[in-house]
Amino acid sequence: MGLSVKEIAKIINASIIGNSDFVIRGVSSFHDSNLYDITFASDSKFLNNLAQTCAGAVIIPDSHIVDGDSFKDKVLLKVKNPKISFFNLVSIFHPVKRKKPGIHPNSDIGINVKIGKNCIVQSNVVIGDNVKINDNVHLMPGTYIGDDVVIGASTLIKPNVTIMEKSIIGDNVVIHSGTTIGSDGFGFAQNSEKHEKLIHTGYVKIGNDVEIGAGNTIDRGTLGTTVIGNGVKTDNLVHIAHNVKVGDNTLIVAQVGIAGSTTIGKNVIIAGKSAITGHIKVGDGSIVGPFTGVYSSVPENEIVSGIPHMPHKRWRKVVSIVSRLPEIRKKLFSIEKRIKTLELPYKESNNNNHDKE
Amino acid sequence: MGLSVKEIAKIINASIIGNSDFVIRGVSSFHDSNLYDITFASDSKFLNNLAQTCAGAVIIPDSHIVDGDSFKDKVLLKVKNPKISFFNLVSIFHPVKRKKPGIHPNSDIGINVKIGKNCIVQSNVVIGDNVKINDNVHLMPGTYIGDDVVIGASTLIKPNVTIMEKSIIGDNVVIHSGTTIGSDGFGFAQNSEKHEKLIHTGYVKIGNDVEIGAGNTIDRGTLGTTVIGNGVKTDNLVHIAHNVKVGDNTLIVAQVGIAGSTTIGKNVIIAGKSAITGHIKVGDGSIVGPFTGVYSSVPENEIVSGIPHMPHKRWRKVVSIVSRLPEIRKKLFSIEKRIKTLELPYKESNNNNHDKE
Amino acid sequence: MGLSVKEIAKIINASIIGNSDFVIRGVSSFHDSNLYDITFASDSKFLNNLAQTCAGAVIIPDSHIVDGDSFKDKVLLKVKNPKISFFNLVSIFHPVKRKKPGIHPNSDIGINVKIGKNCIVQSNVVIGDNVKINDNVHLMPGTYIGDDVVIGASTLIKPNVTIMEKSIIGDNVVIHSGTTIGSDGFGFAQNSEKHEKLIHTGYVKIGNDVEIGAGNTIDRGTLGTTVIGNGVKTDNLVHIAHNVKVGDNTLIVAQVGIAGSTTIGKNVIIAGKSAITGHIKVGDGSIVGPFTGVYSSVPENEIVSGIPHMPHKRWRKVVSIVSRLPEIRKKLFSIEKRIKTLELPYKESNNNNHDKE
Repeated sequence: MGLSVKEIAKIINASIIGNSDFVIRGVSSFHDSNLYDITFASDSKFLNNLAQTCAGAVIIPDSHIVDGDSFKDKVLLKVKNPKISFFNLVSIFHPVKRKKPGIHPNSDIGINVKIGKNCIVQSNVVIGDNVKINDNVHLMPGTYIGDDVVIGASTLIKPNVTIMEKSIIGDNVVIHSGTTIGSDGFGFAQNSEKHEKLIHTGYVKIGNDVEIGAGNTIDRGTLGTTVIGNGVKTDNLVHIAHNVKVGDNTLIVAQVGIAGSTTIGKNVIIAGKSAITGHIKVGDGSIVGPFTGVYSSVPENEIVSGIPHMPHKRWRKVVSIVSRLPEIRKKLFSIEKRIKTLELPYKESNNNNHDKE
Repeated sequence: MGLSVKEIAKIINASIIGNSDFVIRGVSSFHDSNLYDITFASDSKFLNNLAQTCAGAVIIPDSHIVDGDSFKDKVLLKVKNPKISFFNLVSIFHPVKRKKPGIHPNSDIGINVKIGKNCIVQSNVVIGDNVKINDNVHLMPGTYIGDDVVIGASTLIKPNVTIMEKSIIGDNVVIHSGTTIGSDGFGFAQNSEKHEKLIHTGYVKIGNDVEIGAGNTIDRGTLGTTVIGNGVKTDNLVHIAHNVKVGDNTLIVAQVGIAGSTTIGKNVIIAGKSAITGHIKVGDGSIVGPFTGVYSSVPENEIVSGIPHMPHKRWRKVVSIVSRLPEIRKKLFSIEKRIKTLELPYKESNNNNHDKE
Repeated sequence: MGLSVKEIAKIINASIIGNSDFVIRGVSSFHDSNLYDITFASDSKFLNNLAQTCAGAVIIPDSHIVDGDSFKDKVLLKVKNPKISFFNLVSIFHPVKRKKPGIHPNSDIGINVKIGKNCIVQSNVVIGDNVKINDNVHLMPGTYIGDDVVIGASTLIKPNVTIMEKSIIGDNVVIHSGTTIGSDGFGFAQNSEKHEKLIHTGYVKIGNDVEIGAGNTIDRGTLGTTVIGNGVKTDNLVHIAHNVKVGDNTLIVAQVGIAGSTTIGKNVIIAGKSAITGHIKVGDGSIVGPFTGVYSSVPENEIVSGIPHMPHKRWRKVVSIVSRLPEIRKKLFSIEKRIKTLELPYKESNNNNHDKE
């Protein structure tokens, strides 16, 4: 495949600096490219070192002022958002091959199931009763879709995913392999020493344009609903407990756990390995740093870190002191010694012992 | 479905305050209910605000003294344990639909397999050789049951669960989706720079009335057995290594990891995200707080928190000081300055320098 | 099965102390054995207490000097590495039963798939197009192998594993159940409030002699490759993000997470629950302690612990001080009080207030 810089500029709405007839044959990362590739540079680390890439063409931000001479061997394409433009090109150079629509004979489909137009149901897919699958859905091998589930249009379910009964999945959703949607929450009532299971009659509702990573576990509501808002993206091995609500466009990085009945706002970022306790609120636009333990509610637009969490700026000071605690302790003991010396004449005249510590 | 308060009181053994002929049509949570629902209130947060629920009937504790006037529009039902009584009603209002017993033709069953009465084996279930499945077991689609496995009566295995060879699963067990029972433990012996695999010939033994969450990994013993006691409940994404023993009725919350050969006592609670090191004992009745790193044995009935763990009360003090370390450091430097001032006349007369820090 | 001590000594190249005609009927752990078993003792804890095992024969290190009298009832076998020799015997006493080669009719195999000699493809295995499966591979039930995948010789894929398109798996690899290889990385570009998915065209390359635990998630490269070196072993529930490189013979313990584009050296050990941030290097031979948060690059052969990480020796000092912070704070306040006393005459004569803290 080949596209001239002129053709590419039309696709991504770019202005060209250099040879617009140059032909691009591939897309690649900045440091792993060859002459006929196009790559991109978004931040100063790359923009100030354009000569380091072997790519013949580089997508750069409109705002970047090019120091002309040093790059005359490369074609530059200026756009608003180089990363997004570049990945648009990636999808053109590497188009996704969609399988032919159809229902594999090895699949097992229940009664009263409605499957829309242009769907792909691969082998070993099991679909329960009263399920609605909308148009253009792709169910990959080994997925299980429980009774009374609804799957929105153009949603892609990867292999070996489990979607338990009554779950509602939106449009344009991607769910990666090994993930479970709608498992029972961890709800028990103590009855003397035994723990009696609380029946979970709620369900999981996932909005549109959501991507759920591999190996996630998202529990159904006990009575009510566990809600994943529109545009939410979760990384791998994320746990979301019963009755949690996650607001629109929130990002949840790998191995995060969110305990029951907590509400996460919109446009929140929860970095990897963090844990959020139950029954709290994390405000819109807040950021939870990596490996953070959130033990109480977080206000809007706050950045928090630490176990337990504190404002991120304070945490940075605190951890720098923590690592110097041996020196601080030493100083404290040295000060104590100096005080004893100072107290000596005082004590001698007063015959009074302050030396109990 | 409708049940009068009188009928409900008989089922849950309650005494009634109010109109015993009132008809209940559903069960719901305290804050998400309507007039014809029944809900429950266990603690003072709800009991002191009974007017806040729209439910027509509320189950409350025997011991609660009702301030009569304010609730005359609601029927109250007094019982010993409102939560357990309420969830009994939930299971009556939302009876679980059990599929018809039978073995799906899409399943693959090995030789010398014994399947008890009234079992359900759904499509794409694979059962190895010499397996014993007791009465009333339900194996959901895509589960794999290895050779020589025993599954106790009335156990429910959710979709896409893997149970490796020789595992023994008790009665009335529930295992949620994506979980692996009986994977090889992480056991290698270093041979120069390479790590040689230690063959794992042990197995996993799970007791009765156990519930294992989604996405768990429970490794087989190296030579011996990994044991999960009766009544144990694990949340999602829990890791239990080879040769671990977990005592009866212990609760293990989401994303906990327990390293090899550790023994967890009875009635222990291990809160979410915590890690327990290998070859130690966690005593009966102890509680491990959330996000805790247990690096050595824990006595019975102790509560521990922190990384590394310490008694929970101490940890509460410690973390409150950690977050104030910038102020403490500042105070230390201020004190040092004041000492220098005090030392000044002393130094002047002695010509002796203490000022090395 | 029975083998005389003489026969065993020949197999593991041991020298014998005691009755070489004694017949061994089983292998067992030190504390859970009977008279006709053989066990092993590697370290002083066991070597100094050989009388505690009931086993009739014990494999010990060449270097151990036996205190003759106390063990005359046991046969001792001296070898270079008792653990490795013992587990060689375990595999002789417990030979793995390999299923008969063949392709199960319930499997679903795409076009242009090459399957080598002596392979086992069990039921419900799904193989995409243009896949190459080398000799002696065993694919267990419910595994999914995507398009353009290569599986090396003698590799074993356990049940319900998902291997996405273009992944390359080496020879003699074991992948445990529930694991996903080649899921899309967590890569999005912000476009106003929405997060646009970055198409992932890279792949995962796994070397030879690798073992991947249960419930792992290993993401494909965004454009390039995620690389797992030869001889790497991962425990359960490990997350490895896009474009990570893991060097040869590195060990990654349970629930570790490694963020995108990070390079882990050779012969590294990353202990359980630790997190490694993105775009850094962890040097060859380094050790990351349990529950550690690595926030920046780690030099070769360094041992680090803590969140954030620091040299392990410093961390040991720091945590011992952290747990004593209440006492340290108390001492600080006591010192302040003593200073005030000392300042009193000074202040009285100067009328100058230092008492602001």
